[in-house]
Amino acid sequence: MHDFYSDTQTRPTRAMREAALDAPLGDERHDADPPTLELCARVAGMLGMEAALFLPSGTMCNEIAIAVHTRPGDEVICTRESHIIFAESGGPAALSGVMMHPIDGERGMLTPEQVQAAIRPRSAHAPRSRLLVAEQTANLAGGAIWPLGQLTAVAQAARDAGLATHLDGARLLNAQVATGIPAAAYARGFDSAWIAFTKGLGCPVGAVLAGSRDFVAEAWLLKRRWGGAMRQTGVLTAMCLYALDHHVARLAEDHALARTIGARLAGLPAIARVLPVETNIVIVDLAEHAPDAREAARQLRQGDVTVTVVGPRRLRMVTHLDVGPADADALVAAIGALG
Amino acid sequence: MHDFYSDTQTRPTRAMREAALDAPLGDERHDADPPTLELCARVAGMLGMEAALFLPSGTMCNEIAIAVHTRPGDEVICTRESHIIFAESGGPAALSGVMMHPIDGERGMLTPEQVQAAIRPRSAHAPRSRLLVAEQTANLAGGAIWPLGQLTAVAQAARDAGLATHLDGARLLNAQVATGIPAAAYARGFDSAWIAFTKGLGCPVGAVLAGSRDFVAEAWLLKRRWGGAMRQTGVLTAMCLYALDHHVARLAEDHALARTIGARLAGLPAIARVLPVETNIVIVDLAEHAPDAREAARQLRQGDVTVTVVGPRRLRMVTHLDVGPADADALVAAIGALG
Amino acid sequence: MHDFYSDTQTRPTRAMREAALDAPLGDERHDADPPTLELCARVAGMLGMEAALFLPSGTMCNEIAIAVHTRPGDEVICTRESHIIFAESGGPAALSGVMMHPIDGERGMLTPEQVQAAIRPRSAHAPRSRLLVAEQTANLAGGAIWPLGQLTAVAQAARDAGLATHLDGARLLNAQVATGIPAAAYARGFDSAWIAFTKGLGCPVGAVLAGSRDFVAEAWLLKRRWGGAMRQTGVLTAMCLYALDHHVARLAEDHALARTIGARLAGLPAIARVLPVETNIVIVDLAEHAPDAREAARQLRQGDVTVTVVGPRRLRMVTHLDVGPADADALVAAIGALG
Amino acid sequence: MHDFYSDTQTRPTRAMREAALDAPLGDERHDADPPTLELCARVAGMLGMEAALFLPSGTMCNEIAIAVHTRPGDEVICTRESHIIFAESGGPAALSGVMMHPIDGERGMLTPEQVQAAIRPRSAHAPRSRLLVAEQTANLAGGAIWPLGQLTAVAQAARDAGLATHLDGARLLNAQVATGIPAAAYARGFDSAWIAFTKGLGCPVGAVLAGSRDFVAEAWLLKRRWGGAMRQTGVLTAMCLYALDHHVARLAEDHALARTIGARLAGLPAIARVLPVETNIVIVDLAEHAPDAREAARQLRQGDVTVTVVGPRRLRMVTHLDVGPADADALVAAIGALG
Repeated sequence: MHDFYSDTQTRPTRAMREAALDAPLGDERHDADPPTLELCARVAGMLGMEAALFLPSGTMCNEIAIAVHTRPGDEVICTRESHIIFAESGGPAALSGVMMHPIDGERGMLTPEQVQAAIRPRSAHAPRSRLLVAEQTANLAGGAIWPLGQLTAVAQAARDAGLATHLDGARLLNAQVATGIPAAAYARGFDSAWIAFTKGLGCPVGAVLAGSRDFVAEAWLLKRRWGGAMRQTGVLTAMCLYALDHHVARLAEDHALARTIGARLAGLPAIARVLPVETNIVIVDLAEHAPDAREAARQLRQGDVTVTVVGPRRLRMVTHLDVGPADADALVAAIGALG
Repeated sequence: MHDFYSDTQTRPTRAMREAALDAPLGDERHDADPPTLELCARVAGMLGMEAALFLPSGTMCNEIAIAVHTRPGDEVICTRESHIIFAESGGPAALSGVMMHPIDGERGMLTPEQVQAAIRPRSAHAPRSRLLVAEQTANLAGGAIWPLGQLTAVAQAARDAGLATHLDGARLLNAQVATGIPAAAYARGFDSAWIAFTKGLGCPVGAVLAGSRDFVAEAWLLKRRWGGAMRQTGVLTAMCLYALDHHVARLAEDHALARTIGARLAGLPAIARVLPVETNIVIVDLAEHAPDAREAARQLRQGDVTVTVVGPRRLRMVTHLDVGPADADALVAAIGALG
Repeated sequence: MHDFYSDTQTRPTRAMREAALDAPLGDERHDADPPTLELCARVAGMLGMEAALFLPSGTMCNEIAIAVHTRPGDEVICTRESHIIFAESGGPAALSGVMMHPIDGERGMLTPEQVQAAIRPRSAHAPRSRLLVAEQTANLAGGAIWPLGQLTAVAQAARDAGLATHLDGARLLNAQVATGIPAAAYARGFDSAWIAFTKGLGCPVGAVLAGSRDFVAEAWLLKRRWGGAMRQTGVLTAMCLYALDHHVARLAEDHALARTIGARLAGLPAIARVLPVETNIVIVDLAEHAPDAREAARQLRQGDVTVTVVGPRRLRMVTHLDVGPADADALVAAIGALG
Repeated sequence: MHDFYSDTQTRPTRAMREAALDAPLGDERHDADPPTLELCARVAGMLGMEAALFLPSGTMCNEIAIAVHTRPGDEVICTRESHIIFAESGGPAALSGVMMHPIDGERGMLTPEQVQAAIRPRSAHAPRSRLLVAEQTANLAGGAIWPLGQLTAVAQAARDAGLATHLDGARLLNAQVATGIPAAAYARGFDSAWIAFTKGLGCPVGAVLAGSRDFVAEAWLLKRRWGGAMRQTGVLTAMCLYALDHHVARLAEDHALARTIGARLAGLPAIARVLPVETNIVIVDLAEHAPDAREAARQLRQGDVTVTVVGPRRLRMVTHLDVGPADADALVAAIGALG
């Protein structure tokens, strides 16, 4: 199987699993699990935040952050293609009662002027603009990287108007590795931020959400209420610690492979357009004479190649720990044979 | 005072008040209030629906309809300038837990293609597209009237995909009077619709929401839960009945006055642009050399003329029962003197 | 018809209706409706509060107060027979997300010790005890009046533990008239309180909720969001002002009539027990050999007498503006004939 | 450390951890994780249900079940000392908008008559009785076991009135081992049920919730929305499978140890009363002359013995995989020395 469906499909390596075998363990709800405490401290440091907590998924990171930063009836500003809009089952409204205010961005990014224009003047009957959410890298824009200045300026525009700011950092470490800019620099203008361990880092379960001490205390309340509080999470977080030590730098290999794939696909007749490849995501639009996305994905699957349909004529391919040059060859060949 | 702020500012006439003086009364919660029963039956008929219920406001009509048609986490499609987005204090998310999916329309209207594109394919993690809301007339587009064919086609596109449809008819009777097309024709493709009595019709309190019998039964549950269930509402609904008999046809006068105002304002140096005037709303953009909207409204208020600021350089004026040609003269003169 | 179903069934008198005929009116949302402003000021004064707002129902008073005082997941302490539990369609949980913590009281009343025992110690996983709600008079306990000292002590016990306090004063003026203790004295230990105008006071619509200026500002936000904000409410509040002037003292007549009825029923074979009658509510338990409550109510209805079933063998009768000695005779005769 | 705080404190054994080392893995969200699929199938079978899903905690099992079975405003019947009331941070109201209707049970159990009396007749304004929740074993009643007949009769009483039924089976396997009655028999009258793996079974993370196929499909929607959906959960569920094979029968040892502790404590002067010990929980009331619970727990902690305070004068001790006879000796000695 040549699995370009998502970097969420990675399986833990043997070495990663062994890291969990002897980890000292305790109850995370009593702050008694050593690997979990260490992981939270490290991630808080990486993101320049005071504190952090471990959660079972990135979705819970986003949803808890939204719930902490807002009250029901508030409004959240983000790009229209944000993960919190298209991929979290309506959680922001269902769990926090917040209105979504999606803006059409450019490559998954907004300008400070767009943010300013989206913020509503205080009024007796309008929803209160309360939270800005940005996504680094921008998933549906092909893993595009917000330039540091733009990200900072957008966060500042929100803060100047009294809004809270949250950074969805599912693939923030990809940006760090690609640009050399530390994650903490990207997170500087944000009140909360998180990174995923189940994507390029190759862990089976988990994400870490960071913010101020008060924010994390409030987040723990929701973690308990929603059932995200577990027990001896060291069996998971020991693997996350391993990934921080061994799987961050190698994201560069995923990026190189993605660039190669992007360049090779650009030359194929079935492909009309390849979005710029900046990290580990390749998004292509199929040519008019090629099958549509759903049919193309079906044909590829028959050749043991999996990709994601992200639009009527748009496919997404993601590189990660479990795919290499031979898989890329298979992918390119299969797309070359579409018809 | 020359009050162009909104048609919601109208005061009941003496005759309207007298209509309430002798009305037979009973407890509306026990279906025992004759004027309320009569009003609900008449409005249901006007909208081509099976049943209706009386509510203290149009906002409650919209919010209850949304709550009945959806479940938490569902998504609502509407234009970005919808009343449910900018003027109901975040109610859709706070009360129903629904995600807003605003579309940039043309003059407050959508095309069937836009609706189709906005409906999400069924997926494990996307919110479920569940409800389309349209507004006739489109308030922030200057009281623009959806052409019947377009409104019907948009509703049909939603229904074809399994969505429910709701018509915000705050000023639906203005459309009926302006075009001669009955309200029921506009409402035909919708599962629920309502009309307001506190706008052009000149009543002090109330709106009526209509739909199927099942819809109205479910709406009554929420009316009780939210505290919208009252007692001897005949003191209000008798006035609404009076308005149906005496204040509908005269909306044509409001429209004529608005057209006149629009035409006269178009010639003034302070005005860069007048949106097409189709009903009782006039929206203008101030010229570059003129003061901005907030300052202009302030200057007008000093001349006893009130208008609404609806954008940084945009003003709205509404004609209604309590303004006439002399008020229009005052308005035009005051805007002529802006500077 | 001899209507002892509820004091909510009263119809406005001719004089009350006339009070609304000439009242000066304006938009209540812009603080421009004179009778509404006057009513809110008077009720705030009567309850010893800073400010107040007019709402379409007592249910909305309770539900908004709960929403303002709490956050989702908090816990509300009250007696098991509270109106907010049995008669508001699950509003506290549905609208505010609060846990109910009902206590079995004595005649609808709690002791400070019961409140203290019900307040949870702070913990990582327990809901936060946040609000105490008391009801004066206690409806399902037969209109029983909390002694001032007990009511104050219970409120103080809650406040000492950091809880907010809310007084459901649907029939608070009945207590004031019965005891001569001013409503403000009963409300002293409470952060919010309200009185109804649709019960003994005989108005068709409305209730007024009072509290601090901050509380009322926050309550207005929810009044708008839930659709309780209306327009020229003076057509209703002018009647409420009339009731304050003309219908308060006469509640004593309702109390006297209720006492008479209670005494007469106590002697009938069909009646096993009459709860003590302190205000305008009479609650009786049917004797074993008598029909059950549902059947008894049916038989009474056939004799044009209406009462309420409030338990398998328990009936409630309420005196009010629209029933007098002759109705009482009919009631007693009909109950005497049960079998 | 002699840790009687809770069976949630158990640490996975070496053999259990090794079970996770080589397990085949996949993405649970795509039904591609073999150990998770196997675990869900096994637990569904054990509980006599059609299907099941793996969740990060027992709290999420309860909260998702409540959300699936109810709509906002509905009412949930359970004992006053239920885990869903005192230990889930207000989740039922905050997440599902449901009213709690707690009943004072006997040893954590209800009678069918109590359930029948708690179910509200259908009415226009009462909350709808919708769900019965029972807890087997009853934690705060000292791990008491509902007799099969009583549990079944209570569930039937609820179903007869149209309610859904949910079994909180955090320690259901303790009941199975203590009585020899299969879990499926206890679960027979329930629409959903779950078992925890982090308690007596000794796993670090996880619980499995079972019900009909439709129930599980709906539960998956909420699992995703709330962020409980993970990825390669086989690293956790392989340990759960190990526990099913190796740690169920040995619960009998925990029960025997608890009984011994109970008997020995009963003879100590510091102890006024020991609740009947049926499984692995020992609850004692401290004698009048002994310190109160908080102080007693503090003194015990100084002797490296941990217990839980569950009332002003009440302590709870739980036996599990990580405590043995020597720990019991230490516990008894420490309680003997209280003063």
